[in-house]
Amino acid sequence: MVQRSENTHSTDRVDPLAMLFHARSIAVVGASQAEESVGGRPIKYLLQYGFEGQIYPVTPKYDSISGFQCYASDRDIPGPVDLALLAVSAARIPDVLEDCAAKGVPTVLIFSSGFAETGEEGRKAQAQLVQRAEQLGVRICGPNSMGTMNLRSGLTATFSAVLERTHPAGPIALVSQSGMYGAYILAQATALDLGLGLFATTGNEADIELSEVLDHVVRDSETRAVLAYVEQVRNGDGFVRAAETALEHDRPIVVIKVGRSDVGARTAQSHTGAIVGSHESYEAIFRQYGLISVDTVDEMLDIAQLIDYGIFPAGKRVGIISLSGGAAVMLADACSESGLEVPTLPDEIQARLKQRVPFAGVANPIDATGQLFNEPDIYPEFLQALVNQEDIDTLVLFFGQMIGYVEELGSTVVSESVKAARDSGKPFIMVATPGDGRAAQMLKEGGIPHLSDPDRAIRAVAALANYVERREILLRRKKVAQKIELPLIPRADIDTELGAKRFLAEHGLRVTREHLAQSPEEAVRHADSIGYPVALKVNSPDILHKTDVDAIRLGLENAAAVEGAFEEIMCSVEVRCPDAEVRGILVQEMVPPGIELILGLKRDPVFGSMILCGLGGIHTEILRDFAMRRAPVDRETAAEMLGELRGYKLLEGARGSDAADIDALTDTIVSLSNIAVRTREWIEELDINPLIALPQGKGCVVADALIQSIPQDEK
Amino acid sequence: MVQRSENTHSTDRVDPLAMLFHARSIAVVGASQAEESVGGRPIKYLLQYGFEGQIYPVTPKYDSISGFQCYASDRDIPGPVDLALLAVSAARIPDVLEDCAAKGVPTVLIFSSGFAETGEEGRKAQAQLVQRAEQLGVRICGPNSMGTMNLRSGLTATFSAVLERTHPAGPIALVSQSGMYGAYILAQATALDLGLGLFATTGNEADIELSEVLDHVVRDSETRAVLAYVEQVRNGDGFVRAAETALEHDRPIVVIKVGRSDVGARTAQSHTGAIVGSHESYEAIFRQYGLISVDTVDEMLDIAQLIDYGIFPAGKRVGIISLSGGAAVMLADACSESGLEVPTLPDEIQARLKQRVPFAGVANPIDATGQLFNEPDIYPEFLQALVNQEDIDTLVLFFGQMIGYVEELGSTVVSESVKAARDSGKPFIMVATPGDGRAAQMLKEGGIPHLSDPDRAIRAVAALANYVERREILLRRKKVAQKIELPLIPRADIDTELGAKRFLAEHGLRVTREHLAQSPEEAVRHADSIGYPVALKVNSPDILHKTDVDAIRLGLENAAAVEGAFEEIMCSVEVRCPDAEVRGILVQEMVPPGIELILGLKRDPVFGSMILCGLGGIHTEILRDFAMRRAPVDRETAAEMLGELRGYKLLEGARGSDAADIDALTDTIVSLSNIAVRTREWIEELDINPLIALPQGKGCVVADALIQSIPQDEK
Repeated sequence: MVQRSENTHSTDRVDPLAMLFHARSIAVVGASQAEESVGGRPIKYLLQYGFEGQIYPVTPKYDSISGFQCYASDRDIPGPVDLALLAVSAARIPDVLEDCAAKGVPTVLIFSSGFAETGEEGRKAQAQLVQRAEQLGVRICGPNSMGTMNLRSGLTATFSAVLERTHPAGPIALVSQSGMYGAYILAQATALDLGLGLFATTGNEADIELSEVLDHVVRDSETRAVLAYVEQVRNGDGFVRAAETALEHDRPIVVIKVGRSDVGARTAQSHTGAIVGSHESYEAIFRQYGLISVDTVDEMLDIAQLIDYGIFPAGKRVGIISLSGGAAVMLADACSESGLEVPTLPDEIQARLKQRVPFAGVANPIDATGQLFNEPDIYPEFLQALVNQEDIDTLVLFFGQMIGYVEELGSTVVSESVKAARDSGKPFIMVATPGDGRAAQMLKEGGIPHLSDPDRAIRAVAALANYVERREILLRRKKVAQKIELPLIPRADIDTELGAKRFLAEHGLRVTREHLAQSPEEAVRHADSIGYPVALKVNSPDILHKTDVDAIRLGLENAAAVEGAFEEIMCSVEVRCPDAEVRGILVQEMVPPGIELILGLKRDPVFGSMILCGLGGIHTEILRDFAMRRAPVDRETAAEMLGELRGYKLLEGARGSDAADIDALTDTIVSLSNIAVRTREWIEELDINPLIALPQGKGCVVADALIQSIPQDEK
Repeated sequence: MVQRSENTHSTDRVDPLAMLFHARSIAVVGASQAEESVGGRPIKYLLQYGFEGQIYPVTPKYDSISGFQCYASDRDIPGPVDLALLAVSAARIPDVLEDCAAKGVPTVLIFSSGFAETGEEGRKAQAQLVQRAEQLGVRICGPNSMGTMNLRSGLTATFSAVLERTHPAGPIALVSQSGMYGAYILAQATALDLGLGLFATTGNEADIELSEVLDHVVRDSETRAVLAYVEQVRNGDGFVRAAETALEHDRPIVVIKVGRSDVGARTAQSHTGAIVGSHESYEAIFRQYGLISVDTVDEMLDIAQLIDYGIFPAGKRVGIISLSGGAAVMLADACSESGLEVPTLPDEIQARLKQRVPFAGVANPIDATGQLFNEPDIYPEFLQALVNQEDIDTLVLFFGQMIGYVEELGSTVVSESVKAARDSGKPFIMVATPGDGRAAQMLKEGGIPHLSDPDRAIRAVAALANYVERREILLRRKKVAQKIELPLIPRADIDTELGAKRFLAEHGLRVTREHLAQSPEEAVRHADSIGYPVALKVNSPDILHKTDVDAIRLGLENAAAVEGAFEEIMCSVEVRCPDAEVRGILVQEMVPPGIELILGLKRDPVFGSMILCGLGGIHTEILRDFAMRRAPVDRETAAEMLGELRGYKLLEGARGSDAADIDALTDTIVSLSNIAVRTREWIEELDINPLIALPQGKGCVVADALIQSIPQDEK
């Protein structure tokens, strides 16, 4: 696994990231005989977890610790060192780094705090440290990291007291930007008998950051899925690449992003010193790149439990058998609310089951009723009825506490379920609290996971069914994606409505027909050529919100109205914004009635060009009904964005109105995305508001647009 | 507690409902020596739980069961019988009922199935049974009930195998319409060390139904709160009364309503044979009458745990101390998303804390950092800083697994927390998994509940803070409510738009000025008197959707336009609905631009007159953004309805537009509510669409209305 020479590493032959999980020799710098100290615990835990590699305590204070000889410096260690754990004060770190480099240590993991998280001075010290490490060719995890672990090999490079208890190993990885909370997730997983494998806490991420760790972990062959606790992404491109790698390798990333609220973001910032990007961008990225985004750790661990059992539903159709009618209703509700289907069984099968148990509900959900206590042999019949249906992908069974409480029932139910699951190859989930007796053991051996809450179980099934479906779509979409690198568009004159719209028109968007007038007479000439009614608007780089200064007149029906409007606007602007540079009055066609949308481009500090679409009016701004994606966006993704809007039905022609030209809208989103990519160096923000969608076949028209560019001196 | 005469009850002196929980003598009809049978388990469990009253097995098959003498019939029992449990076949129930009545048994609890849940014949048998029971003066719980329990007294009138394990008693009651799922909730509560007291499963509710049980249980002095699992309410008025009683007695009802989705409702119906009303009505009722509505049993039990510890936050302001910065962020997010506040500490206090621990987050949340391991004595300072703030109502502490894993830290944290909680009298909640050692014990004795998930903990706190706030509002509102009984309004001629709007105008709503015309000339005369522009609409009891048949013309500017429109509408109606009775053409003022709303009245099959308001367009119908209440609705409630709309900001004047006349809207909702109450005997449905809200001070106008009345022969 790790390539190395005899005494020192040639860093181009080892993967420094791999050292965090697969090091075979570890130096603990600042090692201590005090077992409860930061320098004492790693050695204690490495022993406790049976780490089979070399352990080198580095400290001048002792001769040996736990039977291992101590060294005054890394330089004195006889064998190679794959990973150095740094548990000395911040002030001593630079010297230790030099020692590590001299020794040829590829990766150092810094536990010490006292860097960027403490303020300006710490930030400087951290920057210097990183700079020096780059020169030396040493990679840093941390500082202020709680460490990493590979519970499968016993590599516990951490001082976290969570290892005071033993944790079983398994195929789930955990990457956490919070050390302590990461440890808590580990403890909760253990309580659920869920084994984690690789575990990394990334601390201040001075060098190695979340994305790089994720990218490494999703390539690990023994890892089945990654749980990620995220406070902020520092490398948007890297994160996206890691997400794409995860999709290719089919290693779902289950992510919880915290700092969603203002007070949460404020707390996260004071806690880590990092800028937290917009929550909406994160959610958009998670969706666009196939991560499973959850709101709570409970949800994360529910999903992880199903993954641990290999539950990847082939579709969204669920068959349900329940000992309780009430639970059947809850499960059906939960399916509906999570976007899963509960297909009704064919009439002839229902009739057959009804004959067998007249009181049972047999449509699917099957409500087996208490009759199952008296006649346990009807259970296989219920099971077969569902499992044989081709249109059922996953079986969910509810037996509550009963399989644990009533041994006879429990054995029958569990053994028949295990048999049916094996024979059919379909995923089975049990909603039950089987206790820790025989029933629980049989379930485990039979490969059927159990969760206690019906809602949570169904939501976890839905998350995985979605993942499977989404992954297929995204991989296919990526395969057909054009790899053409679009040429950059040079900076253009876009600082007025006219400029912005001409620019958009040049790049494929349809805008209102319009001309600039410098006098009432010219305005009338333009209006005559455009055809009445027309709109008049001031055209000025200094007036961004024309309505606020009463500088728009709509629906002007004749020459007299146009002349009057021209004078009024000029007058209003002179009074309200005497200093504005006015570049004339825009005479504009009135677009026929249609549905108003908003289209936008924003540069997210983390993820770059984000494309946004939403319905106009209060929908986008107040009701927050919009869809967002990172550019580039292809046609399929653009159509998906429109379809995600809660108000999509309006575009489809709800309430008797015509359907909008959804094809044209889709094209327009793609065009905007291309513009976003090609102007990434100078357009900061672009708002098309409104974009008027005409009825099907009639296209859509940009009625107003505003572009803000990055000031030239900032480039 | 129970009043009775020597040998028989005089039913007017006992409360038959009380017998389900407080009976002191129980007959088990159909008793069996087979301990695992429906007739065997109740006796087994009564003994197991130490029931101290009389147990009378009734069966001709045995001489004695478990040492109790058997009787061939209830009539032979020597002492009084408070409650008879019926575990015989459905066919034998009528005879047993006669025996019970002859013996003077006030209440029978029927376990037997084979009644309404099985189909038409069963429904008939059940109806006959109820009729006879009424004649005999015997109350029935069930049939098809799993029974009732009082775990405090050991009265376990149930055959549920959930009692195979022991469950501790406590102050939380549980009323469930599902026997099996109710038992599962009990089992889950026990796993959380949460004690339930009274427990009832209501079965088919042939006689005693949910509402009556709730009303009884919320009056129980030893009960602190009621958990209710609800599939359908059969008695809407009774349910509302029970909810009001609960509010008065301050016994929160935490309710989970299942059958929310179509497939869920279908399953519930096949499971219970009952009609499930609209989910929206249920949610409206829960909100209007102060119930705590939850989506999952997890949430229900989280809240129950806090209630068990007496956590009733006086306000919505939370102070947070966390060992983990990550958890601090999650808790802050959860507060914000649940509507709780996290007030920032005053600068001077922050400065003082910062001096003490430079790396800590001190704004609130307080991020204590791992420093707490080294300096546990800083913890009381953090605690005092928050607890002393008057604007903090509740303390939430995060210590994850650490208080269980690291004994020293655990003892300090817990004992200091307990002390601060006692001294301050403020509620404390610990987010942690303390295990089952000393820390857990100390928390329990110190009166601090612990939940494991930060999100769930905060949501439970929010639910209770909301309950406390809501209860106060609702009790005050009820106190000032006018008790005037409004006189009924007799059936009126409302079958056209004109009729409907005249009716509304008579009862206080402002409608468009309009007159009926029978000829183009008359239409012009009316238009002249109203003033241009006007609208023309067909007025017919047979045309409910005028747009669909092109029978509306808007914005007619002059006499010629009116004449033309008249002819066009008549022509269109003649072609498209030749059979429609046309009562002329309505000439109507054009209302100035405003915000369109929808106002409605619907008769819910369970809860009666429901008032609905929402924004027009796609908001109500497609985006489902509306508010609903049961009539009568007072001004405060009407204002609350408007405020609940996601689009409320539009009414307040978002996006540069004028604020709408919210006072007038409020009045209009109240007027509609009064109409609802006064026409409850004949109006089935009333839609005002649109109601146009004009700018503040200008009122609001009914622009169209449709009333559907209950056919006279159905009355």
